[in-house]
Amino acid sequence: MNLPRGFRYAATYAGIRKVVKSDLALIVSDTPAAAAAVFTRNRVVAAPVTLARKNLKASRGTACAILVNAGNANCATRTGDKVALETVRAAAKALGVKPEQVLPASTGVIGVEMDASKIVETLPKLVARLDAACFDAAAAAIMTTDTVPKTAFAEIKSGRKVAFVAGMTKGSGMIQPNMATTLGFVVTDAAVSPAVLRSALKRAIGHSYNRVSVDGDTSTNDMVAVLANGASGVKPPAKAFEAALTSVLESLARQIARDGEGASKLVTIDVEGAANERAAEKIARSIANSPLVKTAIAGSDPNWGRIICAAGYSGAAFDSRKVDIDMQGIPVCRGGLAADFFEDVLKAKLDEKDCHIRFALRGSGRGRARFWTCDFTYDYIRINASYRT
Amino acid sequence: MNLPRGFRYAATYAGIRKVVKSDLALIVSDTPAAAAAVFTRNRVVAAPVTLARKNLKASRGTACAILVNAGNANCATRTGDKVALETVRAAAKALGVKPEQVLPASTGVIGVEMDASKIVETLPKLVARLDAACFDAAAAAIMTTDTVPKTAFAEIKSGRKVAFVAGMTKGSGMIQPNMATTLGFVVTDAAVSPAVLRSALKRAIGHSYNRVSVDGDTSTNDMVAVLANGASGVKPPAKAFEAALTSVLESLARQIARDGEGASKLVTIDVEGAANERAAEKIARSIANSPLVKTAIAGSDPNWGRIICAAGYSGAAFDSRKVDIDMQGIPVCRGGLAADFFEDVLKAKLDEKDCHIRFALRGSGRGRARFWTCDFTYDYIRINASYRT
Repeated sequence: MNLPRGFRYAATYAGIRKVVKSDLALIVSDTPAAAAAVFTRNRVVAAPVTLARKNLKASRGTACAILVNAGNANCATRTGDKVALETVRAAAKALGVKPEQVLPASTGVIGVEMDASKIVETLPKLVARLDAACFDAAAAAIMTTDTVPKTAFAEIKSGRKVAFVAGMTKGSGMIQPNMATTLGFVVTDAAVSPAVLRSALKRAIGHSYNRVSVDGDTSTNDMVAVLANGASGVKPPAKAFEAALTSVLESLARQIARDGEGASKLVTIDVEGAANERAAEKIARSIANSPLVKTAIAGSDPNWGRIICAAGYSGAAFDSRKVDIDMQGIPVCRGGLAADFFEDVLKAKLDEKDCHIRFALRGSGRGRARFWTCDFTYDYIRINASYRT
Repeated sequence: MNLPRGFRYAATYAGIRKVVKSDLALIVSDTPAAAAAVFTRNRVVAAPVTLARKNLKASRGTACAILVNAGNANCATRTGDKVALETVRAAAKALGVKPEQVLPASTGVIGVEMDASKIVETLPKLVARLDAACFDAAAAAIMTTDTVPKTAFAEIKSGRKVAFVAGMTKGSGMIQPNMATTLGFVVTDAAVSPAVLRSALKRAIGHSYNRVSVDGDTSTNDMVAVLANGASGVKPPAKAFEAALTSVLESLARQIARDGEGASKLVTIDVEGAANERAAEKIARSIANSPLVKTAIAGSDPNWGRIICAAGYSGAAFDSRKVDIDMQGIPVCRGGLAADFFEDVLKAKLDEKDCHIRFALRGSGRGRARFWTCDFTYDYIRINASYRT
């Protein structure tokens, strides 16, 4: 895929992680870009989230760079704000831009003091390495328990010109819908105003990151940011831009679910016929977050009783006699009752890497929602029982 | 412990479970007893829940018997209502009481048709076996994935007389706070009116079953019922009765958490200093339901960052700079920041079977709540990946 013009990237190991593996990344736009971001709604907010929000306000929705570290969340520490500010200032100085045009982001363990000097001292080297071709290196540096880097791309055509959109993200625990979940960064060379960027991001997030769940936990550091530098000369219609942004964010969100901690399967949940979209979303989220549904999927067990049960406690009103459920396209429940299906055939289909659950309410309403989650396996426990140590 | 007078119990294998192990139990009061029950708030409700609710209404809060089966939830089936009614009628006939004085309850797999004849044909044998000493046999018959039967007892003294309270319950998956979770049956020979029984049960449930969580899933079949037959001649003050009932239900709820599917540890969460009890409960529930907190406890990892994070997305408002967290009595967080503690000492303490988390807000309010949950281990996955098969 073609990358947007006018952006450069760099990544290196700054000694923040215990293991020697890139843990610091820089994304730079050659010219000040329109910028927008969504942040965690957790009451406990990491220092970089607070500073990024402040900088976006001070710069009136423009930014030149994103500075990201993995290995330490810089959250719930004595020196958090100071560390965030110091590293942002150092990056701004090295890049020759204003500090408010640098957006900081962190991911990693909470409650451990972060050593600003590690980042400050590494920055000159990082800036020297900036290169338009290092997009993938940056995507790798922001990984924590992710098993694969996650990137997605789109194009926006306008006459003979094309603008490009490229995104990177990281998972893979503490993923919960209804938040600007995890870290995600999107760059584009489309020309978009900060106001259009903000509203496009808000809507696109609603149908992507806010519809994905790994474990129902929401991080203190969640952030998705977009930079649009206009280097393509393409000024796309707002709708076309939003569609491209949504497709990139949706792909990234799906990749997060597929790479959920310990996950072996991507589960797509489609809810149809609910009273409205909100009710559909409630039902889908409840199914997506149910450990019993997720363990059944891990075991390729077509246990639709757990699906209807999770819908039942979602808080959305529905008549259980009007529920149809399909798994892998095979009817397992019709009108709230067991449908006839060949258990062995369905079990074999549930062994596939992609599982689909359709939950439809007959003749109720037009509310629909799509959600992504993953199965719940031994490995989730293994990864999380000793994350800190 | 002494059992309440005027009750008899029986249990047997009726062929509902696949494995040969008691799956049908009967609890009978020799005289019509005051009766009260709380039921699941799931939208999808099993047939026995609907019928038990109806019978309690028709009998104006009296009952002679509880008929319970394990192995099939009798939920989301074509013949559910018919099966529930048929078995209740057969029990009533065999006992010589009115059908509305029999409360049915079921637990097991959802969506599989239940064969009423198995129960109807077994009932004469079951009634013939009724015995005041078979309390434990009944408690064993209602188990599903429970590893141990769960019972609790209390006494109410009144002058020289004593009334007894005895309870049994089953877990151990699909346990979620804010519901009359799982199945629980309490019998007492105290003389209590249906109205007093109802209000005492409602309040007692609020501080016991509604404060326990295994996996955040809420069953379609949850029910806790109490029968009070007055056989002791003791008419206790409402407060004394409520205290005894609460102590029994609290003990049962704790036992459910300790025996949560795959659990190796009981986790008690105390929240203090919240704006009000509701806010305290929200925070405690959020911590109790966090898979990240529960896996950290499984790994004896004092990862308090996950605790403050779970509190942060609970929906309760608080200032993170006023948060103190203790684990096993050792301060791990003060004023939202890491406290100094010896990691190895705390890790060793977290290896114990009982874990305690204290989450206190400084100088905020008087709201407090206690919650129980369990750790999240490999075995939860093993048990639930193939429950049906």
